[in-house]
Amino acid sequence: MTQQNTTAPASWTWDADTVSDEYLAWHESTRRNCLRDILQMTHLANSGHPGGSLSSLDLYLVIYAHSKLNPEDPWMHDRDRIVVSHGHTSPGVYSVLCHRGYFDRDAMISSFRRTYDKFEGHIERDVPGVEWTTGNLGQGLSAACGMALGMRMKGIDSQLFVPMGDGEQQKGQIAEARRFAKKFRLTNLTAIIDLNRQQIGGRIEDIMPQDIAAGWAADGWKVVEIDGHDPVAIHRACSASVRDKETPHCIIAKTEMGKGVSFMEGTHKYHGVAVSDEEYAIAQEESGEPASEWDLEPFKRLIKAEKPADLPTLPVTYPVIQTGEPRTYTADTKTDNRSAFGNAMLDVGEANRQGDFTPVAAFDCDLEGSVKLGAFHKAFPGHFFQSGIQEHHTAACAGALSVEEVATVFADFGVFGVCETYNQHRLSDINHSHLKLACTHIGLDVGEDGRTHQCIDYIGVLANLFGMNIIVPADPNQTDRALRYMLSQPGMFFLGMGRSKLPTILDTSGAPFFAGDYQFELGRLDRIRPGKAGTVIATGTLTGRAVEAVDRLRADGVDVGVACLATPTCLNDEDADSLANSPFIVTVEDHSVRTGLGAHVAQALFARGHAVPHRRLGVEQYCPSGSAEAVYQSQGLDTDSLERTIRDFAHSRR
Amino acid sequence: MTQQNTTAPASWTWDADTVSDEYLAWHESTRRNCLRDILQMTHLANSGHPGGSLSSLDLYLVIYAHSKLNPEDPWMHDRDRIVVSHGHTSPGVYSVLCHRGYFDRDAMISSFRRTYDKFEGHIERDVPGVEWTTGNLGQGLSAACGMALGMRMKGIDSQLFVPMGDGEQQKGQIAEARRFAKKFRLTNLTAIIDLNRQQIGGRIEDIMPQDIAAGWAADGWKVVEIDGHDPVAIHRACSASVRDKETPHCIIAKTEMGKGVSFMEGTHKYHGVAVSDEEYAIAQEESGEPASEWDLEPFKRLIKAEKPADLPTLPVTYPVIQTGEPRTYTADTKTDNRSAFGNAMLDVGEANRQGDFTPVAAFDCDLEGSVKLGAFHKAFPGHFFQSGIQEHHTAACAGALSVEEVATVFADFGVFGVCETYNQHRLSDINHSHLKLACTHIGLDVGEDGRTHQCIDYIGVLANLFGMNIIVPADPNQTDRALRYMLSQPGMFFLGMGRSKLPTILDTSGAPFFAGDYQFELGRLDRIRPGKAGTVIATGTLTGRAVEAVDRLRADGVDVGVACLATPTCLNDEDADSLANSPFIVTVEDHSVRTGLGAHVAQALFARGHAVPHRRLGVEQYCPSGSAEAVYQSQGLDTDSLERTIRDFAHSRR
Repeated sequence: MTQQNTTAPASWTWDADTVSDEYLAWHESTRRNCLRDILQMTHLANSGHPGGSLSSLDLYLVIYAHSKLNPEDPWMHDRDRIVVSHGHTSPGVYSVLCHRGYFDRDAMISSFRRTYDKFEGHIERDVPGVEWTTGNLGQGLSAACGMALGMRMKGIDSQLFVPMGDGEQQKGQIAEARRFAKKFRLTNLTAIIDLNRQQIGGRIEDIMPQDIAAGWAADGWKVVEIDGHDPVAIHRACSASVRDKETPHCIIAKTEMGKGVSFMEGTHKYHGVAVSDEEYAIAQEESGEPASEWDLEPFKRLIKAEKPADLPTLPVTYPVIQTGEPRTYTADTKTDNRSAFGNAMLDVGEANRQGDFTPVAAFDCDLEGSVKLGAFHKAFPGHFFQSGIQEHHTAACAGALSVEEVATVFADFGVFGVCETYNQHRLSDINHSHLKLACTHIGLDVGEDGRTHQCIDYIGVLANLFGMNIIVPADPNQTDRALRYMLSQPGMFFLGMGRSKLPTILDTSGAPFFAGDYQFELGRLDRIRPGKAGTVIATGTLTGRAVEAVDRLRADGVDVGVACLATPTCLNDEDADSLANSPFIVTVEDHSVRTGLGAHVAQALFARGHAVPHRRLGVEQYCPSGSAEAVYQSQGLDTDSLERTIRDFAHSRR
Repeated sequence: MTQQNTTAPASWTWDADTVSDEYLAWHESTRRNCLRDILQMTHLANSGHPGGSLSSLDLYLVIYAHSKLNPEDPWMHDRDRIVVSHGHTSPGVYSVLCHRGYFDRDAMISSFRRTYDKFEGHIERDVPGVEWTTGNLGQGLSAACGMALGMRMKGIDSQLFVPMGDGEQQKGQIAEARRFAKKFRLTNLTAIIDLNRQQIGGRIEDIMPQDIAAGWAADGWKVVEIDGHDPVAIHRACSASVRDKETPHCIIAKTEMGKGVSFMEGTHKYHGVAVSDEEYAIAQEESGEPASEWDLEPFKRLIKAEKPADLPTLPVTYPVIQTGEPRTYTADTKTDNRSAFGNAMLDVGEANRQGDFTPVAAFDCDLEGSVKLGAFHKAFPGHFFQSGIQEHHTAACAGALSVEEVATVFADFGVFGVCETYNQHRLSDINHSHLKLACTHIGLDVGEDGRTHQCIDYIGVLANLFGMNIIVPADPNQTDRALRYMLSQPGMFFLGMGRSKLPTILDTSGAPFFAGDYQFELGRLDRIRPGKAGTVIATGTLTGRAVEAVDRLRADGVDVGVACLATPTCLNDEDADSLANSPFIVTVEDHSVRTGLGAHVAQALFARGHAVPHRRLGVEQYCPSGSAEAVYQSQGLDTDSLERTIRDFAHSRR
């Protein structure tokens, strides 16, 4: 139980030719301390990943000691960034951060992997010094690319180091990330692979043979191989990468799993398993250190006290965004929501312009024309990132840029931006990101592309993310206002849009409903037509058709109302209660009937104790190719079918 | 309007030294016909992808003409397989299949991209001759790997060709697939890349620069480059690949986008856009063919008739599986569901053993020990596939093997098997696959790994797949019976299991509840304890704790019942109605309270018109690291908390 914090002197930098003698002495002694920490915290937790922590340890020591960091100001504006991709080496990362002066040792060791503190099993961004929560392998380089873009936009000249595992090189997303880094000349990136040749199930050659160096070289990175336990070699390779302003470097560091503890070396056994009591005793004996230094009893007392570390709170980094003047699409306009999105993106970019800079950025995966980002791209070429058909990388990269004081939009077709990349968004959510996900071609409204491209699950899938706000606007006016709203807010948002041109939704006076005094608000049911006989609730693309169907019924004397819920997973209590006395409700959505608006409205009413006859209209199966209108017809979701079904349901409820 | 079907003579094979003169004549004339078809069907549909169809056309002609195929028996057991990965070239694929004799031309051209027929915008497995529905790029090679494994298991010596786009080479999943193919010596694979250097947004060099050849070579494939419009060169390269029994080949075929139509060549404009009326007229003129052959009026009349093609129905290919004798875990046993899963996998494998063969296979992503597949692996080494940390590939590969008369299990941690691979499962579902997804480490029950590894959305995410049956068993006995049941059924199934050892759930007589006469059934509410004061409904890992909590309440005279719903998204009407008069219900789940059991039970009751006071207990946020018990405690989901909450709720409802 000792405080062993040290702050690296300012003289330890990448500028020096080599490491100083002073550093070497620090390295040697700190390595011993960290090794002990790693065994202590994993043994105390009886879980964790000591083997890889020890193979990466020399890398971590050199990098964290020579980088531009300030433990007193962990989120210092111009700091270097160290994004550890193999987040299971948390004991190694935590212990080096501790000895670099970020936090006290006692709480770290005693609270590791315990529910009352932030020292999670996989590194977590809430811990100062940790840049990105990882643990789902293969995402770290993508996150670092996003941060590198943020630094470029903010004019910060710093280096980004990405320590990675060798097993995780199997993830395809890494190839996507290195191509992105190469294309955008993110030459301040340094990837460092801990090549201990072991993954959890055995030797990498046995689990999945791979020529790691050839893969990086194929994507245009400079590859160097070093001894990953030699601090001089590590420093030399990192320094060379920092000096090279033309090409990003991949340093392949040959290491030994479990390095420094005889029985742990060269086996995958301790990849994810802590040492036993007997083994702990052997390790202590090997260390030659006094038994008192290895004594766990004081930490056990701390565990009982459940005293969390006194860590500073992660700041929320979100820019102030001027939302500009909303555009109003009149009754005569017929445009699509995605064009309204593209227009509003340009407007908000311009409203915040400072020279070439705006605190807004957009990512696209080879669909610029379809997702209507052309005007924004032209106006802000340094803020538009064409990422190719590499959605996994792009989602993670955009998530990371979103915490760099840049309102970041990832635009894509629904099936790629939601279905293909759900887990990347999930990790962004865990990272408290502010990603704005804007998907076009949602629902059946994808042109004639057919079932592979019909994203009929955007609500049902994204509803699982605690931090995600889901918005599915009904027409271009609501799209315009929703986008301006979400860009001005921290947190994750989804904006879902179809492909087709839509009618402007009008109020009973014939004026655009979602314009004038209308303000976008989460959870509100917008009553477009009043009605006592029953209530139709619609979201998104089909809202206009639902309004038209209801208008026809109303012209026939059927007093049905229609309302729009643009936030299908979020209905405020007051509006939910207002539906309790409706003779019936019909929900209308261009989404699976199982998991979208209908499902969420049903739940909201049930939770409030209401039983209301309910007919869910939506997508019942994977659907065929055809124009939106033809596919809607085939599913009974065109205006005529809606009119008929609502009429029949109204009659049946009389 | 002519029938131009031809069956390739048996003499056109890969065995010949080169193509015959007869073939060359057929190629030349058929190419003209296909070119016209492609322009006709896209122009009629006013959408589609003519440009890439024309660049891939010579490849398709040579491959479909020389492969072992039988249009009269499209799913012939020992056929060669052609898995087109860039499914948007459907006009090219359909037209070549048509001229190869698979179906009539009139319906194909007139019904392309129309809701009443199967000629979808992206190729679809329901069309005979199409092996796999693609369109989500980067998945075709993985699917072909799965089919190659199936052929190996069935002892079929055939070749698999995988035509791919050049833009899609950006997808990381392709690198995963080629490593898998190399590791498992799937040397009968031939990848053929249509290198037209254009993707939808522009030149591949501009969208995302990439050294395609170096990437394939890095992963150990033999790479050859050819002129992709020279049938002799295509045949030579394919034949060489067929003959090479050591290494899979990647043929990079240099082509011209829009080849054969002057104004379409060399531009990305027609990647996803049909020609205009004026352009159609120019193309006709260029062809030198009589105007009558290009006349679209007859097809327009067919469109009005909406007459679908007379296509044979895709057969369901699922093996007959003997389920063996269920194991019974007694009251004294304390094991985990994943061990029961591993045991039952072995049992079912053995129950169907024929020598080294069993109609069961399992995939793992470097977690063999954790997902308990060791015994199955040892017993059936040729049926266990260690796929490394390559989940995207593995999910797609397993989905494809599952339609090869092999009951195919993909086992993984929940966060990788569900969250990371949702879109791969979605495409498997669209492909009518029979994939069995078995995930361990679901919910908060992941050991101390922390939030990155807590899969608290397995129900909410998978509920979006129309074909997916979700099963979350309560104890090892139910796990055993659920696994045997799902392996015996066609269709997609999910089996969700935590990490911890669980108590055997007992009936009121003290005997194991899920044993003896118990038979697994979808949608049934299993009443574990009767009770008039209210009903607790649990699923999965927390069921045992819920039963214990209820037993304590019952001992205190609170007459609460407890039931288990192992299929949380599926509750039959009778059982839903049986809850209508319960004074209250409490749902208990190790899953997000927003999207799991509680959400689905609420919906089921609301749909039946019932209003029942309901308390949802489950996961309310991303949770910290800790043992399952500690994390449950932190979330109020341990037995003591459940007892207290249910008691309070029961009191409040009196």
